[in-house]
Amino acid sequence: MATAADHAAMRRAITLAARGLGSTSPNPVVGCVVLDASGETAGEGWHQRAGGPHAEVHALRAAGERARGGTAYVTLEPCNHTGRTGPCAQALTEAGITRVVYAVGDPNPRATGGADTLRAAGVHVEAGLLAEEAEAGNTAWLTSVRLGRPHVTWKYAATLDGRTAAADGTSRWITSAESRADVHRLRAESDAVLVGGGTLRTDDPHLAVRGIEGAVQPLRVVLDTRAGIHPGARVLDGAAPTLLVVGEDADTRRLPDGAELLRLPLYDGRIGVPELLTALHARGVRSVLLEGGATLAGAFAAGGVIDRVVGYLAPVLLGAGPAVLADAGITTITGALRLDVTEAVRVGPDLRITAKPKES
Amino acid sequence: MATAADHAAMRRAITLAARGLGSTSPNPVVGCVVLDASGETAGEGWHQRAGGPHAEVHALRAAGERARGGTAYVTLEPCNHTGRTGPCAQALTEAGITRVVYAVGDPNPRATGGADTLRAAGVHVEAGLLAEEAEAGNTAWLTSVRLGRPHVTWKYAATLDGRTAAADGTSRWITSAESRADVHRLRAESDAVLVGGGTLRTDDPHLAVRGIEGAVQPLRVVLDTRAGIHPGARVLDGAAPTLLVVGEDADTRRLPDGAELLRLPLYDGRIGVPELLTALHARGVRSVLLEGGATLAGAFAAGGVIDRVVGYLAPVLLGAGPAVLADAGITTITGALRLDVTEAVRVGPDLRITAKPKES
Repeated sequence: MATAADHAAMRRAITLAARGLGSTSPNPVVGCVVLDASGETAGEGWHQRAGGPHAEVHALRAAGERARGGTAYVTLEPCNHTGRTGPCAQALTEAGITRVVYAVGDPNPRATGGADTLRAAGVHVEAGLLAEEAEAGNTAWLTSVRLGRPHVTWKYAATLDGRTAAADGTSRWITSAESRADVHRLRAESDAVLVGGGTLRTDDPHLAVRGIEGAVQPLRVVLDTRAGIHPGARVLDGAAPTLLVVGEDADTRRLPDGAELLRLPLYDGRIGVPELLTALHARGVRSVLLEGGATLAGAFAAGGVIDRVVGYLAPVLLGAGPAVLADAGITTITGALRLDVTEAVRVGPDLRITAKPKES
Repeated sequence: MATAADHAAMRRAITLAARGLGSTSPNPVVGCVVLDASGETAGEGWHQRAGGPHAEVHALRAAGERARGGTAYVTLEPCNHTGRTGPCAQALTEAGITRVVYAVGDPNPRATGGADTLRAAGVHVEAGLLAEEAEAGNTAWLTSVRLGRPHVTWKYAATLDGRTAAADGTSRWITSAESRADVHRLRAESDAVLVGGGTLRTDDPHLAVRGIEGAVQPLRVVLDTRAGIHPGARVLDGAAPTLLVVGEDADTRRLPDGAELLRLPLYDGRIGVPELLTALHARGVRSVLLEGGATLAGAFAAGGVIDRVVGYLAPVLLGAGPAVLADAGITTITGALRLDVTEAVRVGPDLRITAKPKES
């Protein structure tokens, strides 16, 4: 039976874990709190970047000798394998931790088994505390492990009547400065940000994170099937890494030197969504923020690979102009993509709606 | 200086006033609370229907002799004129009320002056308590007095991507049963419900209020420029009064007997929004609920006569299908109709967003 102190420590560990969002891939985010034998906080830690120490190691280092006889709260089952860092199960045992409480079992076959190892070493192990909350914080990574592709968030910004621009194409600004700042937070939490060729040509987006101290820049992924990107495109600056996705036969001789390329087959002139996601996953991308445009989002919707929708709705009406979503392959109401709203909040004058596909 | 008891009594009066929404036009909604000399509630009342007693009369009747030496709280300045009922200022004085607190001054030139009459009779009069809240409850009527036309609420129901139906026209159901029930409440609070000819033909709407006990049915107003309505149209049943708005030269010989007609000039085959609103206002309609379709809503938006927007957003994506708003005459982003969100709440699985045009 978990106590109020157990809950508080695990909740803190979940909060700590979230600090790693966007910088730990291909690893999960993990948070850890160590209480000493008297129940006082002795150390805290979170997994900060792939290749760096795991959360448990950070927390144990902070706790030092106070870990002996203490309890470790970890958002994910401690690992049992020696990767770029040593196994955490062993580190916990060696530090003298006598009780380990973790929220979510590790679904990664290479890492699992930490709980058994701990138990074999005489450590008291409890699983499942605040598992739902901890899972929610690790959704992207858990999705990628389960499906073998990155977790996809489709972000859009539109008027109340579903337009992304006026009839003449003008769109600055539909949503507010507050919403635009919030998008930078979404980017910072993502491994990659993706736009299609139409958005590239129309908006010349920059896609890097601005205004968030310490943020790890996401990979900017641009679909440019014919390798026609303008050499002065903003997405080609040095602010963040950029990956140009081109058709397998594209003539890339006019591309700027140093641009990183991914060649993929085309279907009717379009890049296939499954191939794209597989290639990104192979590069270690665990979360993708799909930022536009309408047709690309339609292809993702049609492919059933949108895991989360984050919509910024501006209290604006246009009555004309491009729609936010197109060509999703839905012709009748029974084919509609139905979602559950998980959150609806005001962001400045706008509304931010977060939703997930209904489980069928 | 208003006391907590003053606030409580006025807030109660505002709540009582709201009970009259949809049934008092062309009069405002008004609530009244009478406290006796010791501060106990002696009587309550609200204006229930045009031609019936005013709120003050109901409250004074309930209070009886306990009104003597008491205070009356009224959401609107007591009237001074003899219309279908006697002047309330006189009724309050005769009942022995010694203090009157009202929220909003009466902007109606025929009715104003009640405060002066009360003061002349030696009653202590205070104005402005909770004026903003009281005004919000009387928005439709105040708008109609100020502008000489009914207050217009545009209600829409759409997917997150701004569609009202799928590509093949199917739309049952996009929003939830909860949202549809909420629309009946909106109808019950409105004097008239309005749809255009496209909606009439496509949806065969009924437009009457269902499921709300005691609701006064709104006038169902249908734009049918060529008088081509099908005799079996649901809107022609006896559930509520119906007004068919036809072009001035329309051949109405095939219309069902007993259908009430309003003839208006056509411009490019369309009924002019200003003429329509003027005609409705002349009939005593103080609030209109505009229910569709996209083109009619566009004409209202273009005319600057939408006073409130109530949108039901279903967590559904379609990627194709008719847009919720069309032809609003907006071609570039600087011409966008900008709103302020006044409320955003969940209604079942959907979101209901209430907004008002930004004051420019």
